[in-house]
Amino acid sequence: MIETLRIPFDELFGTLEKILVGTGFAADDAAVCARLFTETTCDGVYTHGLARFPRFMATIKNGCVLPTAKPIPLVQMGALERWDGQRGPGNLNARAMMARAIDLADQHGIGCVALANTNHWMRGGTYGWQAAEAGVIGMCWTNTLPNLPAWGGTKPVLGNNPLVIAVPRILASGAAGHVVLDMAMSQFSYGTLAAYREKQRPLPVDGGFDADGKLTRDAAAIEATMRPLPIGYWKGSGLALVLDMMAAMLSGGLSTSQIATDPLLESGVSQIFIAMDLQGLQGPTQSESIADGILQFFATGGDGVRYPGERVLQVRAENMVAGVPVDPSLWAEVKGMLG
Amino acid sequence: MIETLRIPFDELFGTLEKILVGTGFAADDAAVCARLFTETTCDGVYTHGLARFPRFMATIKNGCVLPTAKPIPLVQMGALERWDGQRGPGNLNARAMMARAIDLADQHGIGCVALANTNHWMRGGTYGWQAAEAGVIGMCWTNTLPNLPAWGGTKPVLGNNPLVIAVPRILASGAAGHVVLDMAMSQFSYGTLAAYREKQRPLPVDGGFDADGKLTRDAAAIEATMRPLPIGYWKGSGLALVLDMMAAMLSGGLSTSQIATDPLLESGVSQIFIAMDLQGLQGPTQSESIADGILQFFATGGDGVRYPGERVLQVRAENMVAGVPVDPSLWAEVKGMLG
Repeated sequence: MIETLRIPFDELFGTLEKILVGTGFAADDAAVCARLFTETTCDGVYTHGLARFPRFMATIKNGCVLPTAKPIPLVQMGALERWDGQRGPGNLNARAMMARAIDLADQHGIGCVALANTNHWMRGGTYGWQAAEAGVIGMCWTNTLPNLPAWGGTKPVLGNNPLVIAVPRILASGAAGHVVLDMAMSQFSYGTLAAYREKQRPLPVDGGFDADGKLTRDAAAIEATMRPLPIGYWKGSGLALVLDMMAAMLSGGLSTSQIATDPLLESGVSQIFIAMDLQGLQGPTQSESIADGILQFFATGGDGVRYPGERVLQVRAENMVAGVPVDPSLWAEVKGMLG
Repeated sequence: MIETLRIPFDELFGTLEKILVGTGFAADDAAVCARLFTETTCDGVYTHGLARFPRFMATIKNGCVLPTAKPIPLVQMGALERWDGQRGPGNLNARAMMARAIDLADQHGIGCVALANTNHWMRGGTYGWQAAEAGVIGMCWTNTLPNLPAWGGTKPVLGNNPLVIAVPRILASGAAGHVVLDMAMSQFSYGTLAAYREKQRPLPVDGGFDADGKLTRDAAAIEATMRPLPIGYWKGSGLALVLDMMAAMLSGGLSTSQIATDPLLESGVSQIFIAMDLQGLQGPTQSESIADGILQFFATGGDGVRYPGERVLQVRAENMVAGVPVDPSLWAEVKGMLG
């Protein structure tokens, strides 16, 4: 077994920042982009942080991601806006658009930005945490390349279209206790399937179909058929469909049906960002007492019960002290990009 | 096997309308309420139409549902509003609040109404169809009494919190081809479990846990343990939680943790209604061509692939001609309410 390295947050961040500046990012953008990648891994979402950086760099090299492009507004109608992401870096675009939705919510109570022509946002939860840290409810989703068969079929005609919902909560201690759900419409993401395959471990529940059309816990078999299971069978299949329809129709951008099937060429995706202002509706105290009541009751549900995002802040704190866990070969690959 | 009756739409509607007038509904409200019940059964959603009418009447008699109460606005902040449902009839309240969200979307691009202190909305899809028929995207959800254990636990600390998303679409022929998703966060609703138990048929997939804590397709065993499975295991569990948090925190109303566990006393639930204006963003042609492209690609996914709501308009048309299918004993019970 290969030992995991522990890289200090600042060293990891600084390395990525230098690489991005060398790739043509403006200094400010390089800093934000590097921070988002580093924070994702530091938060324990290992599939969507540093592990995605080589692919991100490849999509810059092949022209899918334009390092200096910025989103521009196309239609503004009060609380709902349509923007064009101009094929800029997906995480920078998404962060800017959630910030815009938060501004709109501040003005109108609720704000929604539909973004066309953007790129993979890496970890969707990032923009949920962003909203929660601003004290608003955040909701966002993205479409993806076709990677999920609809229920009743075998050909991937849906994206796994991750959906993020974040509810802000400040504990009586003053510490953050935000609830942040970040879930793809497939039972397991391809990143998670790869991780189970590499560890040669069975999935905890059926994750898709094998070559014989049987439900299986064998991650490699599902990667081979490209038939992961939608969450809730027909339900997740339907939800993936309407998320794609809303993203493409509101943004005027590409739907899953129009996105390249090669992950290295996946570009021009459509996304939705919604923010809702809790503070304007009520004093924070009332909102927090409702949230506390819900989570106290939730915690009585059983010893194994965890709310979405419950462990993130703890993992973050641990990794800030011990260093961010990084696979040695991945770290060598990334350091090689320093040139 | 008992033969199903076929009752003409107008006869079913007229019967319910008379009963509601006799129960204290204003004439206009009785007509709308009766129509919503009749349409639900006519559309083939047999679990949430006439089959719910006896329970609806019982909740009027026991004081949970106040026939003449109307929702009132509490906070208005542009595109986001908080209303109090005053414990009025859940379907009338929900219909009024989706209409209000549509008005707000017309003014601001997007509109959101958070409704506290309301009652069971019967078929959630009703308000999705309402939005789609108005040409807007509709999204709504409700919390419920605690009827779903969180993933990792055994005690019901979540509601199954149905979520509705509707995307309007007009076919080239001019006919409606709306996509309307209406799904609870449990793999099967209690209404569906009861229907499988009565027919003594196994569920098509695992639907929850039996008394031994094993996943099962036996509907009666799941009813007995009250341990239905959340869709996508931990994912639906997390989604049910955040839907409840958003509904209660935005409306200032009750959370699942505060709602009576007896279905006959389930009252004061919290709901969210969101509408998004597609027409203002773009010409209808563009939006429809995107929708058509998505659904044409979707249809290539396999012979068994159906989009949410695909069969509803066909079933509706058939039942309008042949009569609405009604269980004879249920019909006798309802006719007995004419007094």
